[in-house]
Amino acid sequence: MRTLIKNVEIVTMDSDNHYYPSGVILFSGDTIEYVGIEQNLPANLNENTEKVKEIDGRGMLALPGFVNAHTHSAMTIFRGYADNLPLWEWLTTRIWPLEEKLQPGYTYWLSMLAAAEMISAGVTAFSDMYMFMTDTAKAVEDSGMRAVLARGLMGPDDQSEQRHKEVEELAEWRYRAEGRIHMMISPHAVYTCSPEYLKTCRKLAEKYQTGIHIHMSETAKEVADCVREYGKTPVRHLYDLGIFELPVAAAHCVHLTDDDMDLMAENHVKAIHCPSSNMKLASGFAPVDKMIERGITVALGSDGAASSNNLSIFKEMSLASLIAKGYTGNATALSAETAVKMATIMGAKALMLQDEIGSLEPGKKADIQLIDMSGPHYYPKEDPLVHLVYSGYSGDVDTVIINGKIVMEHRKLTTIDLEQVYREVDNVARKIK
Amino acid sequence: MRTLIKNVEIVTMDSDNHYYPSGVILFSGDTIEYVGIEQNLPANLNENTEKVKEIDGRGMLALPGFVNAHTHSAMTIFRGYADNLPLWEWLTTRIWPLEEKLQPGYTYWLSMLAAAEMISAGVTAFSDMYMFMTDTAKAVEDSGMRAVLARGLMGPDDQSEQRHKEVEELAEWRYRAEGRIHMMISPHAVYTCSPEYLKTCRKLAEKYQTGIHIHMSETAKEVADCVREYGKTPVRHLYDLGIFELPVAAAHCVHLTDDDMDLMAENHVKAIHCPSSNMKLASGFAPVDKMIERGITVALGSDGAASSNNLSIFKEMSLASLIAKGYTGNATALSAETAVKMATIMGAKALMLQDEIGSLEPGKKADIQLIDMSGPHYYPKEDPLVHLVYSGYSGDVDTVIINGKIVMEHRKLTTIDLEQVYREVDNVARKIK
Repeated sequence: MRTLIKNVEIVTMDSDNHYYPSGVILFSGDTIEYVGIEQNLPANLNENTEKVKEIDGRGMLALPGFVNAHTHSAMTIFRGYADNLPLWEWLTTRIWPLEEKLQPGYTYWLSMLAAAEMISAGVTAFSDMYMFMTDTAKAVEDSGMRAVLARGLMGPDDQSEQRHKEVEELAEWRYRAEGRIHMMISPHAVYTCSPEYLKTCRKLAEKYQTGIHIHMSETAKEVADCVREYGKTPVRHLYDLGIFELPVAAAHCVHLTDDDMDLMAENHVKAIHCPSSNMKLASGFAPVDKMIERGITVALGSDGAASSNNLSIFKEMSLASLIAKGYTGNATALSAETAVKMATIMGAKALMLQDEIGSLEPGKKADIQLIDMSGPHYYPKEDPLVHLVYSGYSGDVDTVIINGKIVMEHRKLTTIDLEQVYREVDNVARKIK
Repeated sequence: MRTLIKNVEIVTMDSDNHYYPSGVILFSGDTIEYVGIEQNLPANLNENTEKVKEIDGRGMLALPGFVNAHTHSAMTIFRGYADNLPLWEWLTTRIWPLEEKLQPGYTYWLSMLAAAEMISAGVTAFSDMYMFMTDTAKAVEDSGMRAVLARGLMGPDDQSEQRHKEVEELAEWRYRAEGRIHMMISPHAVYTCSPEYLKTCRKLAEKYQTGIHIHMSETAKEVADCVREYGKTPVRHLYDLGIFELPVAAAHCVHLTDDDMDLMAENHVKAIHCPSSNMKLASGFAPVDKMIERGITVALGSDGAASSNNLSIFKEMSLASLIAKGYTGNATALSAETAVKMATIMGAKALMLQDEIGSLEPGKKADIQLIDMSGPHYYPKEDPLVHLVYSGYSGDVDTVIINGKIVMEHRKLTTIDLEQVYREVDNVARKIK
C-alpha cells in the first residue's frame, strides 16, 4: 500500500534542513520513499499496479512526529491528583502510596489514555520508564505508537528479583508490533540505586545490547546528597561506574556543573529536558543553552502526567525556547528551529532510533504529523517553525501517521476507543484512589 | 432574547468561588440573570412570553471570558517577522521603521485578525495601546469584542498634537457598540515621556475621568536609565509625578524593588504580567508571587504578537503559574486557581470593568466561554482549574459569548469572515513589508 500526501508544506528536519513550501510525501508500507516537489516524484509511481491513496495536505504543515523522550505513561491516572507539592513530598506522601495499589492489567488502560493524549498532540514515539511494562507494550501494540520501554529499577531490595523478571518479560515484546517496540534498561536514579546495583543495571543493558535511561541531577537535593555520600556529582558518579560506556539518555539534567556537562559531551550522554515538570515541581531551570553549545543532544520529555500534568511535546518545545531566553537573559538563546530539533531528531537520537525516525526522508519510517496552519494565530505567514513554537498548540495537530498507518485523521483517533478507555480508567481510579 | 446554557460545569470566579459540577447559566440580552443549579432557576422562566434559546453545555466547562489586559492588537502584522532579538534592537531596527508605514484603515484589518485570534482563544475583553485607535474601535464594534482602547502617547515631540487629536477622536467611540468600547490614557513609558508630558497625560486622564495604562519597569535597562536620569525607579518616579492618584494599569512590572511593590500596593496600582513576552525578549521574570502576597492585583497580558507571537491568555495563565514555581523554587507558588483569577477577575479589575465582567454572576455582562473538556489531556476528572492551567490549550475553547452574543460556536467565528481578514492583512503586508 502506497500513500501520497499532496500539496503540503514540509519541514523535513533532515541534516540539510530541507524545506518545501508545497511538496509531496510518498510512503510505501511503513517506509518513506520520497519527500520533495511533486515534479520530481519517482516516475514509476503510476506504473505500479498498487493503488496509491492520496491525502490532501492543503493548509497543513508536515513535520516528523514529535518524540516524547521521557515519560511514565501510566501515570496519567495521577493527573491533577496531587498538585502544589515539592518533588520529595509529592513522591513519598501522594504518588508512591497509590502506586503500591497498581496491579498488572490496570496499566494497560492508563497507557492507552497516555497514547490517546500523545497521538492527539502529534507525539508518535515515546520513551517510558515505569512498572508493568508488558501492559504498556500491549498498549503500544494496540494504539499503533512507537516506543522504547523500560522497567524502572531500584535496589538492591527484596523486589529486585521480581523487577528483573519483568525486564525478561518485556524483552519478549522487543521488536514486536511491526518493530515498533524497543527497550532500554532504567535504573531509576543515583539516590534509589546503590553503586553495585548500577553496575548490575549496566550488565543488564550489555546483555540486551541496549542503552540506559535514567533520571539524573533533577533536583539540588539529589546533587547535594550524592556529593555528601559519594564525594561527587551524580554525573561524575555515573561516569566513574562506567555507565557512560553505554548509550545513556538522562532525564532532567537541571543541576549540572561545567565539569558535568564536559563529561556528558565527551561521552555522548543525551540529555532529556523536561521544562514543565522542572518548573511545576520547582526543580529549577536546566542549562540547555550550555549543553547545546557543547554539542550535547538535548531531547524533550513531558515527564509523567502526575508531575507535568500533560504529555504534549508541543508545549515543552515552546517552553524550552521561552525559558532559555528568560533564564539566560539572552533573547537569541535557543531558537525556534533548535526547539523543533529537540522535539524531533534529537528525540530520535535519545531513543537510539535516529536511523528510523526524527526526520522526513527516504528510508525512514513514515512517522508524520500534519498540522493545521489555517488558524488566525498562524497569520500572516512567516517562518512556520517560529509560528509553531511561539503560537502553536497541540490541538492544531490534524492528522498523525505512525509506521505508515493513520492513527488520527482530522482529530479522530482511529486505533483507540476513547470512551472505552475513559470507562476503564475510571474503574482503575475507583480501585486505587 | 433569553439564553439558557444547560448541563454545564461552571466555575464562576465570583468572590465566593462558587462552583457547580453541573448547572445552568441564564442570560437575558447582554446580562446574566442566574448562575447555579437548574432546580433553583427563577420560576418565571417559562411564564415569560419570550422564547428561550438553549445551549447544551454537556462536557463543557463554563468560565468567564479571559481578559487580555495588555496588548497592541494591530501588531499581528509583525507576528514572526523579527524573532530572536533583544527588546531595544527589536524596537528600533525592525518594528518602529515598519510602523512608520502604517496608515489609517490598515489597522482595522490587523485588529480584526487579533480579534479573530483572541475570540478563538476564549478572550472576550482586551486592553489595547497603539495608534489609529478609531480603526481598532471599529474592529471592536464589528467583531463583537469588549475593549479598553488607548492611543499610545510619547512626547512631547512634533507629533504630540496629532496624537492628542486622535485621543479626542477615540473619545467619540467611547461607550459605543452597545457599551463595549472604553478608553484609557496611555503614556508609553517613562523613557519615552518627559516628566512634564506625563503630567499632561495625567490631566488628559482626569479630563476623560479614566485611568492610565502604561509600560512600567519592563527591562533592567529601563530601570537603570531612569535611576541615572531621575535618581529613582520608574515606579517611584511615576508616584512622585502624581500618576498613581489615578487608577493605573502597569504592564510588565518585571524589575521591581520591595519599595516599588509597597508603593504599588498602597496606591492600588494594578500590574499586568506578560510572561511570554518577558521571556521571549529576555526581559526577565516578574516577581508575581511577591506582588500577589502584597495584595496587588496582577492581571495577564499577551503583549503584541510582534513580541510574544500570540494573543492567548490560556498560554499566559499556564506560564504564569509554571514560571512562578520555577523562579521562586517553591512548588506551591501561584496555584492554578490564582492563575485563573489573574486571567479573569483580576484582568477585569485592571481594565476598571470589575463591575461588568470577570466573573459569572447575576447582573454582570454575559461574557462567557465554554471549554470542551472531553479530550484525553483532561482525564481522569479532577479539579477543572488544575486541568485547565497545566493541561489546557486555546484550541479547547468551543463557544464564546460576549455581551450576550455568540461570537464563536463550536469553533466557528460568527462575526468575522476569516478569509476576508487574511486577504486584507496580506494587502497591508504587501504595502509595508
